[in-house]
Amino acid sequence: MKPTARTQLRRLPERGSHDLETIHAVLDAAFLAHVGFSVNGQPFVIPTLYGRDGDTLYLHGSAASRMLRELETGVAACVNVTVVDGLVLARSAFHHSMNYRSVVAFGTARKINEPERKTQALRLISEHLIAGRWDDVRKPNEKELKATTVLEFSIEEASAKIRTGPPGDEDEDYALSVWAGILPLQLEAKAPVPDPLMTNGASVPEYVLRYRKA
Amino acid sequence: MKPTARTQLRRLPERGSHDLETIHAVLDAAFLAHVGFSVNGQPFVIPTLYGRDGDTLYLHGSAASRMLRELETGVAACVNVTVVDGLVLARSAFHHSMNYRSVVAFGTARKINEPERKTQALRLISEHLIAGRWDDVRKPNEKELKATTVLEFSIEEASAKIRTGPPGDEDEDYALSVWAGILPLQLEAKAPVPDPLMTNGASVPEYVLRYRKA
Repeated sequence: MKPTARTQLRRLPERGSHDLETIHAVLDAAFLAHVGFSVNGQPFVIPTLYGRDGDTLYLHGSAASRMLRELETGVAACVNVTVVDGLVLARSAFHHSMNYRSVVAFGTARKINEPERKTQALRLISEHLIAGRWDDVRKPNEKELKATTVLEFSIEEASAKIRTGPPGDEDEDYALSVWAGILPLQLEAKAPVPDPLMTNGASVPEYVLRYRKA
Repeated sequence: MKPTARTQLRRLPERGSHDLETIHAVLDAAFLAHVGFSVNGQPFVIPTLYGRDGDTLYLHGSAASRMLRELETGVAACVNVTVVDGLVLARSAFHHSMNYRSVVAFGTARKINEPERKTQALRLISEHLIAGRWDDVRKPNEKELKATTVLEFSIEEASAKIRTGPPGDEDEDYALSVWAGILPLQLEAKAPVPDPLMTNGASVPEYVLRYRKA
């Protein structure tokens, strides 16, 4: 994607990218987006799940959600997706940093009205969150679809920013007797906790046991 | 804190809170904030580290950062901090959810100019990220302080939203032969990776080995 002023990478452009494949890879490595929009000049930032198909992100929620009601009017919006990969522990306070993968995407959203397209978008969101789950569960019925707003957010412009690798310190600081390096961080799935109300004896599905994101 | 229209909890108010202790606990459980602001009507959402002291959040970065340059003018801003605790796997697609702790805070930022207050704020950010680190490393010198912008963001209003516990399904769905429950998720520290350029033989500090956030 060709950058304009809003996606131009001012700080540390060597960490940045407008490459579509890089942007899609970051969007696919996470499931939580932070959506920004303004109401009467007051910015809001709301976390939400999403799905992706090409340069379209799918968002959903209650028909009563303030975020969705604002976004569906087509106002300018911004979506940020960030994966934290580790703490960068340098020898000086100044050179401390984070290893991360982050995408800032700009665009506008539109409401999806057709029940079939809504259901398809909900499937994308569900599969993006936990692949394999959709086929196992009861699909949304007419009443549930009506209570759910689904938006398609078209990415008009986006940029990725990625930091990897060890700290970079000032030459003279390498002599300090400080431990320096990376503390890797990872969002990990722990042992699944069955619903206490589950009496059907169903075993934990493979896609739950092997869950991995990022 | 007393809610106004922008922090009024419209959706699922039983999950929400304006209690200061709850809000502070969520802010202290994470280290990554998503900051929202608008430039000429275009919202931006940028991830950033932070520190906290009472109802003040400290933000920092390069003096060239677009985000900090905009925020220091005192524009309306929004900070979101979200901790993901797990996936809520219900029997119906509709009742899938996330366990999470999230705070939306509104306010404005101001630049800190005095070097001593700047350094103190940087210490708060550092200790918020990884307690114990600050004492070990070389502190910012005059040149580094000049290259760093530090802002104090005063929280004028905030709300917390928290979901815990098992899925809630429709009565008739409990008979389905679907596995239901929680898949807990946690940001975990893995084995520290020493900087390949470290030749001082320093051992990994305890605060790195025992790192735990959230």
